[in-house]
Amino acid sequence: MEKSFILKGNIAFSKDISHIETIENGYLVCIDGKSKGAFGAIPAEYEGLPLYDYGNSLIIPGMTDLHLHAPQYTFRGIGMDLELLQWLSTHTFPEEARYKDLEYARKAYRYFCYDLKRSFTTRACVFATLHTEATIELMDQIEDTGVIAYVGKVNMDRNGGEDLEEKDSDSSVAATLDWLKRIEGRYVNTKPILTPRFIPSCSDELMKKLGKMSDEKNLRIQSHLSENMSEVAWVGELVPDATCYANSYEIFGAMGSPDNPCIMAHCVYSDEKEMEILKKHGTYIAHCPNSNMNLTSGIAPVRKFLDQGIPVGIGTDVSAGSSMNMLRTILDTIMASKMYYRLVDTSSKPLAFEEVFYLATVSGGSYFGKVGSFEDGYEFDALVLDDSAMYSMRELSIRERIERSCYNDADCIIREKFVAGKHIFSRKQN
Amino acid sequence: MEKSFILKGNIAFSKDISHIETIENGYLVCIDGKSKGAFGAIPAEYEGLPLYDYGNSLIIPGMTDLHLHAPQYTFRGIGMDLELLQWLSTHTFPEEARYKDLEYARKAYRYFCYDLKRSFTTRACVFATLHTEATIELMDQIEDTGVIAYVGKVNMDRNGGEDLEEKDSDSSVAATLDWLKRIEGRYVNTKPILTPRFIPSCSDELMKKLGKMSDEKNLRIQSHLSENMSEVAWVGELVPDATCYANSYEIFGAMGSPDNPCIMAHCVYSDEKEMEILKKHGTYIAHCPNSNMNLTSGIAPVRKFLDQGIPVGIGTDVSAGSSMNMLRTILDTIMASKMYYRLVDTSSKPLAFEEVFYLATVSGGSYFGKVGSFEDGYEFDALVLDDSAMYSMRELSIRERIERSCYNDADCIIREKFVAGKHIFSRKQN
Repeated sequence: MEKSFILKGNIAFSKDISHIETIENGYLVCIDGKSKGAFGAIPAEYEGLPLYDYGNSLIIPGMTDLHLHAPQYTFRGIGMDLELLQWLSTHTFPEEARYKDLEYARKAYRYFCYDLKRSFTTRACVFATLHTEATIELMDQIEDTGVIAYVGKVNMDRNGGEDLEEKDSDSSVAATLDWLKRIEGRYVNTKPILTPRFIPSCSDELMKKLGKMSDEKNLRIQSHLSENMSEVAWVGELVPDATCYANSYEIFGAMGSPDNPCIMAHCVYSDEKEMEILKKHGTYIAHCPNSNMNLTSGIAPVRKFLDQGIPVGIGTDVSAGSSMNMLRTILDTIMASKMYYRLVDTSSKPLAFEEVFYLATVSGGSYFGKVGSFEDGYEFDALVLDDSAMYSMRELSIRERIERSCYNDADCIIREKFVAGKHIFSRKQN
Repeated sequence: MEKSFILKGNIAFSKDISHIETIENGYLVCIDGKSKGAFGAIPAEYEGLPLYDYGNSLIIPGMTDLHLHAPQYTFRGIGMDLELLQWLSTHTFPEEARYKDLEYARKAYRYFCYDLKRSFTTRACVFATLHTEATIELMDQIEDTGVIAYVGKVNMDRNGGEDLEEKDSDSSVAATLDWLKRIEGRYVNTKPILTPRFIPSCSDELMKKLGKMSDEKNLRIQSHLSENMSEVAWVGELVPDATCYANSYEIFGAMGSPDNPCIMAHCVYSDEKEMEILKKHGTYIAHCPNSNMNLTSGIAPVRKFLDQGIPVGIGTDVSAGSSMNMLRTILDTIMASKMYYRLVDTSSKPLAFEEVFYLATVSGGSYFGKVGSFEDGYEFDALVLDDSAMYSMRELSIRERIERSCYNDADCIIREKFVAGKHIFSRKQN
């Protein structure tokens, strides 16, 4: 398949945050990897392009997973009765330490990438480990999947224990520069992103140096923010001058800017003050409801983020989130917002299905540019979905079929997957 | 396969509510449909029995789905942005009304039973509709699956609208007696259960007559209790003399007894007073967390039920619950209890994985007798599970593998399924 073609099927994509546009037996035109729009009939100017007819299948935009940890994938769904800090020290840090062994990393990342390629995810922001060799191996493998990703070598120079800690801020920075140098020009699709793990893992000096590097090299930053109550209290002790957790990053010059925005995962305990900082810096919030419920962290006030105009995307947060499935994470986002409304704040209306579909596609996708829609000019990320395993006794609308697929993710099968117009996966080849 | 045999594999079952017993490469002995126990080596007295070796697969007890609605299955996962009463009137009642057409019911129930047979469920308590013919059709089909079930023709003589209402209490009772007569002696595995939908659907007279019928015929009752705030308020208006929702059933003599216990689904808003009534009558609570989150109902205080000694099982509540998958419902139960702890009451410790596994197997199973364990004397319900789609970089314990399967239900495949010693499904025959 070249990068110019037409797909036929039952099309859905967000018109805006409150509306899903659908076209039955419609046509999607992709020219040189970019969408020209969705049509009820093929426009005259595009006749003659190769046409792929997917019959009754659904075609929706690809999804952006704004936060996940590749080295945690192989132990997903284990130790989930623990809370964050205990889970990190019991399961996560000991496992990540093993990635100093490149062969181990190669094998484990092969499993991760195999599933990533077959997932609903077309764009991803990924944490690796602190190990340079293993991070490059991960980037090589992700590049091969066809999924477009930011990948970060993790920085951590404190509180990681003997086996998962860089010696000091200088060696962490040197390793980061070495990593960046070694991957220069190496990839088409895979981009580096600075990845200080979180405040407890990074000394003040390291945070400052990474903030400076971000500015000087115009490199983005991804990290964690206000996930868990014990973590928030700990950060308060570590950076006593900060007015809040986000202000800790701000003090160190590591909160990015609207032109060079950070991703902050979680924000469960972000209050009005913290939201102002996030808004000012154009920070993307990676909302990770599955993770936040699994680790008993709580539920982030997503409705408030949206009301404030803060950009929000969705993250699976593998493996505190137990699944890399974005349809399921859409469902978790809806469920969490319903419980937030019912149990915490009845003035925060639950997120409607339309809104969460938008977050998973357009809103998260915007971190990568014009991504997550089929409107004219968007990069052509598309999923062709077979939902025929779910019977219905009546004709369902496309909107209903997509909702049903999110509520029964195991019964919705990916037939084909396209990223920026490139066909990267077919069930037939599986 | 006869009903006496030995299964070999990696065995797990609840020892008590806090402990899961595991045996690697162990043996389960089934004699005439009953378990003789789980062993590290074949006891001499059982040598020579047919042995089925499932290699590295897991073998766990079958699961009891204590509450689900068969006629709702084909529209699961649709309209989930609505709350209970709106969802019933918009989606559920119009769909259930179609089951007056036997051919329609036959076709729809075929879909339901196809999936039920392939599910983790070995025992189920099922709502049909108010239609006698369709209910018998459902019972015929469930009998064929091999799953052992209570099935109820629904009673509703008010508030169902023109198309889903019995004329009055007399005609509802007459239809129920007719149904019971027609199925007498018809099934080995499928039992009738009286099924007044809930207080808003049943006049005072009808409830009283069903209560009396339950006593006289020693028939159990299943219904709904304290699911949603608007519903609870409505019941308060309908039965103004009752001290609480459960007392409404009690007033009408329809709350059962420890010898003939009811199932009450949901109990999200059951307070101490209501719990006393439940305890006194030996009522089983069908906890349906997926449903309760989907319909924004809330989260039931399961820890408190357990502390009170009230029997609790788990229900998928298809299709307010969107999936018939009991592994996933175990996960939803854990998640809901974590959110209850975090957002509502920090004195209610989250349910541990072990506890919820027990609820799904032994506790729910006890509604059917000695069911849900491999200890000596239990009916032999077993699931052989293939979890090999989930890679791991290290050896996992059986306990870890089962936890992981609940957190990633789509990646855990049923190889074989046994109910009361009868082999009812094999993936190979699928």
